[in-house]
Amino acid sequence: MMTFKLTLEYDGTAYAGWQRQQDQPTVQAAIEDAIRTIGNVNVPVIGAGRTDAGVHALGQVASFRSDRAMSAEEWTRALNGVLPADISVLSAESVPDEFHARYSARAKLYEYRILNRRERTALDRQRVWHVYRPLNVAAMRQATHILVGHHDFSSFEGSPTDNENPTCDVRRLEMHEDEGLIRILIEADRFLKQMVRAIVGTLVEVGHGKRQPEGIKDVLEAHDRRAAGYTAPAHGLYLVRVEY
Amino acid sequence: MMTFKLTLEYDGTAYAGWQRQQDQPTVQAAIEDAIRTIGNVNVPVIGAGRTDAGVHALGQVASFRSDRAMSAEEWTRALNGVLPADISVLSAESVPDEFHARYSARAKLYEYRILNRRERTALDRQRVWHVYRPLNVAAMRQATHILVGHHDFSSFEGSPTDNENPTCDVRRLEMHEDEGLIRILIEADRFLKQMVRAIVGTLVEVGHGKRQPEGIKDVLEAHDRRAAGYTAPAHGLYLVRVEY
Repeated sequence: MMTFKLTLEYDGTAYAGWQRQQDQPTVQAAIEDAIRTIGNVNVPVIGAGRTDAGVHALGQVASFRSDRAMSAEEWTRALNGVLPADISVLSAESVPDEFHARYSARAKLYEYRILNRRERTALDRQRVWHVYRPLNVAAMRQATHILVGHHDFSSFEGSPTDNENPTCDVRRLEMHEDEGLIRILIEADRFLKQMVRAIVGTLVEVGHGKRQPEGIKDVLEAHDRRAAGYTAPAHGLYLVRVEY
Repeated sequence: MMTFKLTLEYDGTAYAGWQRQQDQPTVQAAIEDAIRTIGNVNVPVIGAGRTDAGVHALGQVASFRSDRAMSAEEWTRALNGVLPADISVLSAESVPDEFHARYSARAKLYEYRILNRRERTALDRQRVWHVYRPLNVAAMRQATHILVGHHDFSSFEGSPTDNENPTCDVRRLEMHEDEGLIRILIEADRFLKQMVRAIVGTLVEVGHGKRQPEGIKDVLEAHDRRAAGYTAPAHGLYLVRVEY
């Protein structure tokens, strides 16, 4: 029996997210199906993060176990031959049996892309959030500083579950701007459901002057989703990297 | 009667190219249809370049005439409201009646994108040409120098027409590389049919060592399409800008 770690790129547009569902196409199901086609075995594939419908990945990580006599290299080749064009395996490696894509993850990096210009984009319509009113990036950046660190992020949790630990350690939160394309990079040890999208939606309210940058402190301390802003659309979000 | 110049972005994936055809969707037809919907008039729309099926545009230019009492700003708003999501108007401006998107053009800039890495890309599958064998970019760059200038480009013409002038003035031909993404920028006063794609295909043969960089001189002088290389796929090509 061998355990493999896959690094995956996918275009989330056509999928109802990562996690397998009864009647909708998901990335997890596509990969499990591909493994079944190749190895004639039913094995569960574990993802590092359960990306929402429409969210993309540049470096999602998944793990699975197999007793086939196939190397990591052979799995990469075979999977890329069988998977649909909107999912690709960037690499596969053999890892110790204790490896678990989700529980072994030490940190994740997400990127959110906003296109801030008057006219909509044809080429990137499924890749960026088009915000047509000008954003005050300096004010947004000021607000990001408040979010860095060890905090209770309940105010930015999509659908809270009673039992979940709401504390995350945001280690990095950067904004880059280039010709109207604003990239927000956020790295943390863990993320709550829809946390990045709620943070981005709230930052955009700051960028539009609806909130003061310092107001983010009150949002954090409210521990109440209603205190934060809009949930930014899924199609601007990318899972960039998972650290182990 | 007013003449308008439109600057357009489009995702060429779903279109059989720019030019109107009997039974296939084209970009020109989509724009003419949108103008008819808005203005209740049938007007021809002239494009600066007839992009092939699958080719994208970041800055195609088109012109049309209208006797509606609508400003350039109103046309932009109205067209972006009516056009399909994969075509967008970046700007519209009122221009002198003599303006003709095609005949008034003084130069065009194209970009070709190659992704040079082992594994295919899910997110950019319709946006870059995936070349998996390593390319010698230095050799390709050396070959580009031979192509700059005023030459007969018959060897790089897709389907030659007897009457066409085969001379083009290539003013700029640059290669940029960043993490496996190779961008080839080519600017000329005019282009022959499929010229950029034939140049890129030939450069890739140089990058794979199938041709010597200096061999490009013989290709140019042959005035014969069979002397050049492969025609690179359409989906890596972008019409970036048209100069007037």
